[in-house]
Formats: sequence, C-alpha cells, structure tokens
Amino acid sequence: MEKVKVILLNKGVFDDADAAAEKLRRELKEKGVFLVNVMSSPGAGKTTFLISLINRLKTRYKIGVLEADIDCDTDAVRVAQKTGVKSVQLHTGGMCHLDAEMTRQGLDGIDLRGLDIVFLENVGNLVCPAEYDAGAHLDMTILSVSEGDDKPLKYPLMYEKCKLVIISKTDAASYFDFDLKKCKENILNRNKDAKIISVSAKTGAGMDEAADYFIKALENFKK
Amino acid sequence: MEKVKVILLNKGVFDDADAAAEKLRRELKEKGVFLVNVMSSPGAGKTTFLISLINRLKTRYKIGVLEADIDCDTDAVRVAQKTGVKSVQLHTGGMCHLDAEMTRQGLDGIDLRGLDIVFLENVGNLVCPAEYDAGAHLDMTILSVSEGDDKPLKYPLMYEKCKLVIISKTDAASYFDFDLKKCKENILNRNKDAKIISVSAKTGAGMDEAADYFIKALENFKK
Repeated sequence: MEKVKVILLNKGVFDDADAAAEKLRRELKEKGVFLVNVMSSPGAGKTTFLISLINRLKTRYKIGVLEADIDCDTDAVRVAQKTGVKSVQLHTGGMCHLDAEMTRQGLDGIDLRGLDIVFLENVGNLVCPAEYDAGAHLDMTILSVSEGDDKPLKYPLMYEKCKLVIISKTDAASYFDFDLKKCKENILNRNKDAKIISVSAKTGAGMDEAADYFIKALENFKK
Repeated sequence: MEKVKVILLNKGVFDDADAAAEKLRRELKEKGVFLVNVMSSPGAGKTTFLISLINRLKTRYKIGVLEADIDCDTDAVRVAQKTGVKSVQLHTGGMCHLDAEMTRQGLDGIDLRGLDIVFLENVGNLVCPAEYDAGAHLDMTILSVSEGDDKPLKYPLMYEKCKLVIISKTDAASYFDFDLKKCKENILNRNKDAKIISVSAKTGAGMDEAADYFIKALENFKK
C-alpha cells in the first residue's frame, strides 16, 4: 500500500478563530494558493469527486490535497494512487471539524511552493464543519442523491455557507426518491447565489462543468 | 400538512452528563419504557427504517417517536402520517447531537404512560452523537450501502458504541461499490459483539429480522 504522510492535528487554541481564519486566507492569497474546503455527509463522495476533478485539472494546475479523518488513511492513499498529486492525511484526534488553526497545521505538512490549489477534504459531517471558518477561499458541499432532496432543509447552515453545491451520484438518481428540481429549490432557499452542479464522478457526467467552474475561480483568484 | 408538536431543546447544563444519562435510563426502566437511540449519517434512512419497523411492531407495543433535527419538521410529520404513532419533533437549536438532558426535555413532551418503546432519532451525524450518552437502553446506527463499506474505519466511536448496526438500502447495493463481507468485518473489528442486520425498508427485505430483534430486546427489558 502506498505510504502517505499522516499528521495528527491539535485543537486550535486561538481566542479569535475568525481572525485566525482571515489571516490564513490572506497569507495563502499572497502565496497564490487557492484553498478549497470540501464538506459533506459521510459517504457523499468527496474523495471520488476530488479524484475525478483533479484528473481534469492537474495538467493545468499544481494541486495538493489534505484529507481529514478522525481515523483511517485510505482517502489520502486513494487520492495519491489515482491522481499522482501530493496528498497528506490529517487525523483530527476525534474532532468533528477543522478550524483555521487545524487547517494551518495540515498545510504546514505539505510543501506549498508552486502549488495553485489545495483541496481540504473536511471530516464527513453536515453540522459542525459549517460552524467553523477553515480559512478557505471557497467553501463547497456535496450532496449525494441517495441522501434525499431535503438535506438543505435539515442542515441549513451548511447550505447558507457554501457558494458551490455539487449534487453527486446522479447516475443512481432513479434508484432513490430524489427530486432534483425540489432539491435545487431547497438549496437556493438557503443561499440564492449558490452555484449548483449535478455530477456523476462514475460516468463523468457534469465533471467538465465542475472543472470549468474551478478554472474560472482560479482565474479570478489569480487576478 | 399534519401538525406535530415541536419542542426547542436547551443545551444540557449538568456537570455530570454520565450521571444524568444513568439516571434517565434507570427512571425509564422503572416506567417500563425502552429507549432506543437511532444514529446515522444524514440521509442513511433512519426515518424510513423506523416507519417500516414501527408498522411491524405497533400492534404488539405502544410506541412513541422523538425526531431530532437542527431545523425542519418533516420527519415527525412523516412518521405520524405513515405509522399513526405519537411523534414529536425536537429542534436542537443548532446542536449537533443530543445528550441525556436534551433527551429528557424531549421525553417531557410526550406522554410516556403506557408506552413500551420510544425511538429517539438523533441528529444525522456520525461523529458527535457517538460522544454523548443520550440515556438510551439501546444505541444503534444505520449505514446505507451508498455511503461505502469503509465507514466503520473512519468513524470508529460510533461503531464501538452501537450494539445494533443496520445496513440499509440493500436493494441499491449493486449500484455502488459496496462489499457487504468487508463491511461486516469492519464493523466487527470495532465491536465484536455487534448485531448486524441488512435491510431494505423499500422492499421489506430483512425487516422481519429487525422486528424480531426488537421483540426479543423488549422481552429481555421487561423481565
């Protein structure tokens, strides 16, 4: 099995978590590194989406990945094997989310020089990660069709926070009582400016549109 | 739309949360009410499973349901409509889990006299609810096949804590890369005594076995 670096994170100790997040965001901007905070329920397909996305972006950009989990190293290994990009596993020591200080500890474990984008795969959890500013330039969430179209009603903060919502596993939609129109309405009721892209990382449907979104976001960021 | 009672919970203020949980468990035992704490990721199918289960148990037992969500009342309404049993919606005020004091507030909203079982549907979250003792006699979790067979590796505490693990949405298993044998191994590695039952609430497969489990658990509890 491929070896990846594993970092055990310590809980942030800063009094002012918002200021720490702003500072991290500013420093990364100065370095030209675009940080993306990828959130979702457990098993919504964060890692599979990232692998498919990174394989569409990696000839154009230098990419790094931080994989946060309470335990287990499989995601960082999978990303490294299937994309070839730098991937580091973060262990949160039981913590249910990442704050900016924990993100910084993770970033310290990856050589940022020359990188254009770092994807931070947060702990699978629709509640707590939404409450903390990880210091990213883009907060996004993934909703798989198997979870149901009502999730934006039940986990409001996550959908208020995220500029980009990926609806994943659309190839399996007919298997579930998933109403795409209603789901989009529920998302837009939480955040009228959210960009919604439906994808199947398995068939590739929608993945080019997702890659284009990131290319444009990077162009704006580098301006 | 059917009206259900909605209770906004306050965060527990007890210094000794474990003692509060033990006290609740004991009091419910004296009243002959078996409390089941149902946990899972968002969208794993807790409510659908409970509806299917309750419809198999309700002629034999008097049942109550507490549906905890950060926001939204649809689950309590669905349970009331589809089973006819008493169902109360709890709003956690943003909290990511229930502790025993919050559970007690929820139970105060339901008339316990004559009830045999109360199902407490916890907030959809594999991390935080595992860290708190809700005061239940049975802690259980549901893992849907769409989430992947690796969840017990990533969310160890949930699987260490739960005596009963339901593998749900098995009718959709062929759609996903889900290895049932590996999943069971992963669960048993976390808790060698866990009872694992595979079900599809949609087709009914496995639901009689699940109902039998609860009938036996109730018989033991009433002894």
